[in-house]
Amino acid sequence: MKRIAISIGDLNGIGLQLALENHEIIKNAVEPLYCIDYNMLEQGAKLLNIPIPNDFKCVQFIGDTFTIKPSKVTKESGAYSFASFKKAVELSKEGMVDGIMTLPIHKKAWELAGVEYKGHTDALRDFFKTHAIMMLGCPQMYVALYTEHIPLHQVASEVRNVAKLSQFLIDFYTTIRKHLNHKKIALLGLNPHAGDEGVLGSEEEQIKEAIIIAHQTIGKEIYTNPLVPDVAFTPNNRKNHQYFVAMYHDQGLAPLKALYFDEGINISLNLPIIRTSVDHGTAFDIAYKNITLNNLSYLNAITYLRTT
Amino acid sequence: MKRIAISIGDLNGIGLQLALENHEIIKNAVEPLYCIDYNMLEQGAKLLNIPIPNDFKCVQFIGDTFTIKPSKVTKESGAYSFASFKKAVELSKEGMVDGIMTLPIHKKAWELAGVEYKGHTDALRDFFKTHAIMMLGCPQMYVALYTEHIPLHQVASEVRNVAKLSQFLIDFYTTIRKHLNHKKIALLGLNPHAGDEGVLGSEEEQIKEAIIIAHQTIGKEIYTNPLVPDVAFTPNNRKNHQYFVAMYHDQGLAPLKALYFDEGINISLNLPIIRTSVDHGTAFDIAYKNITLNNLSYLNAITYLRTT
Repeated sequence: MKRIAISIGDLNGIGLQLALENHEIIKNAVEPLYCIDYNMLEQGAKLLNIPIPNDFKCVQFIGDTFTIKPSKVTKESGAYSFASFKKAVELSKEGMVDGIMTLPIHKKAWELAGVEYKGHTDALRDFFKTHAIMMLGCPQMYVALYTEHIPLHQVASEVRNVAKLSQFLIDFYTTIRKHLNHKKIALLGLNPHAGDEGVLGSEEEQIKEAIIIAHQTIGKEIYTNPLVPDVAFTPNNRKNHQYFVAMYHDQGLAPLKALYFDEGINISLNLPIIRTSVDHGTAFDIAYKNITLNNLSYLNAITYLRTT
Repeated sequence: MKRIAISIGDLNGIGLQLALENHEIIKNAVEPLYCIDYNMLEQGAKLLNIPIPNDFKCVQFIGDTFTIKPSKVTKESGAYSFASFKKAVELSKEGMVDGIMTLPIHKKAWELAGVEYKGHTDALRDFFKTHAIMMLGCPQMYVALYTEHIPLHQVASEVRNVAKLSQFLIDFYTTIRKHLNHKKIALLGLNPHAGDEGVLGSEEEQIKEAIIIAHQTIGKEIYTNPLVPDVAFTPNNRKNHQYFVAMYHDQGLAPLKALYFDEGINISLNLPIIRTSVDHGTAFDIAYKNITLNNLSYLNAITYLRTT
């Protein structure tokens, strides 16, 4: 059974409730190791009025004890969630676990705590000095992003960079090859109607060049030709593909979240370790309020690690 | 009961089958006037082996008789479909009908016939010398496009044009105001996370300026602030809005077609006439093959006209 380190996220948010309530389910699939000190666990569980399962294994000496303030952005909680994340990464680097699952942190709380990263992926890139590939989705459909958090007007010039794009295609294939079935990876074009033979833009030519280079390196044809973006995610086309590569953030994520908002997860690929995350935030509005949480994203994030 | 002119589309495709098979359904909702000569109707109906309903009213003297060649791109069929479309537009201009519904034409057939337009919308803009607004969707969700068939790298500069964007917002509101319920029109941002306070792009500032100008002219607050594009179409957000304005083609149409591919229709707004269309093509692969057609888009296109 795989060992998974779970960083506990912002303790003022919903992360701990998710961890406690789903322990009985996930312990049958993986061996979870929760990155939280026992006194913090006791404090949180009491606030939530949820009993701590006997076999809820915790990693100790995470960070300084503080008072949980439900739904509040605090420096202390920011520092603790960063410490928990760092511990999970360390365990994975040391080979003590097979992968890490990160519960949601609050970016502002990290900032208050003086953490220099904007989020988990940002930190991972710096920790490992490699270009992590961001993939989101659920078993029905995964979307990897070639460009991510850049202004839309900068996307086209990135797509014209054939060397960078072909390397991305090679890296992405390499990192998910063992998950691939016979279906090709759906690669999206950039322009409306995939350029309509150049009438509506020409970057599809560079995408085709990058595909050729990638296929030469890989040794087989893995990617489709650049698909017409607005029909890439129709029900029929989704039957033909499980993995999609989008040229930019919203091209892939708007359709994904329109279809599968609740069950989506975030996966960091192309790193020495494997990391998944729920695709939602700390949900301060419903934290510590005895509200039933949607656990689809949490369970999918665990399942991905189990089957990787 | 509203009178609707139906242009028959490319007779080598599926248009005529849709018209014949759905006549009994639509005649209870509207009074259809089919723009097809009776001899062409007889020829097509015989090929389809579908009896012609007694009350299937046709407009005569559309164009030259020709031999229908199922699934073929021909000059004759291109010329006839353009003539049928022109007739429907004329009837509408003359006030003989309340709106027009166009069955699918084949762009290459128009080209072979020497028609100078790339499609219906293109022709309508020239006929009326106005900027038609393109809206796609179904009753659950309509998406209007601010920019349409331009390369992606040109989109940002169009969005920075505050005068043009604010005029678009005013025109769009004016043209659909009578359909609006209490829900605001969802207006999308341009950049990932709607720019994240300027970190990922700044065009959201111009969008906000355009909204202010539009609201001043309209006299009330109709549009949302620029929404984060990738979560604009989540199930929860779709509950709050029926109409969406996308900044560019794939931003709006990829989520729409992921969700509602079969039932979508295309609507031309901001014209002196009202025109709807099915959101699919001539489907040559299944034309005249005794295959049951999906009629959702056709019926929705009629319904839109009936309720406008």
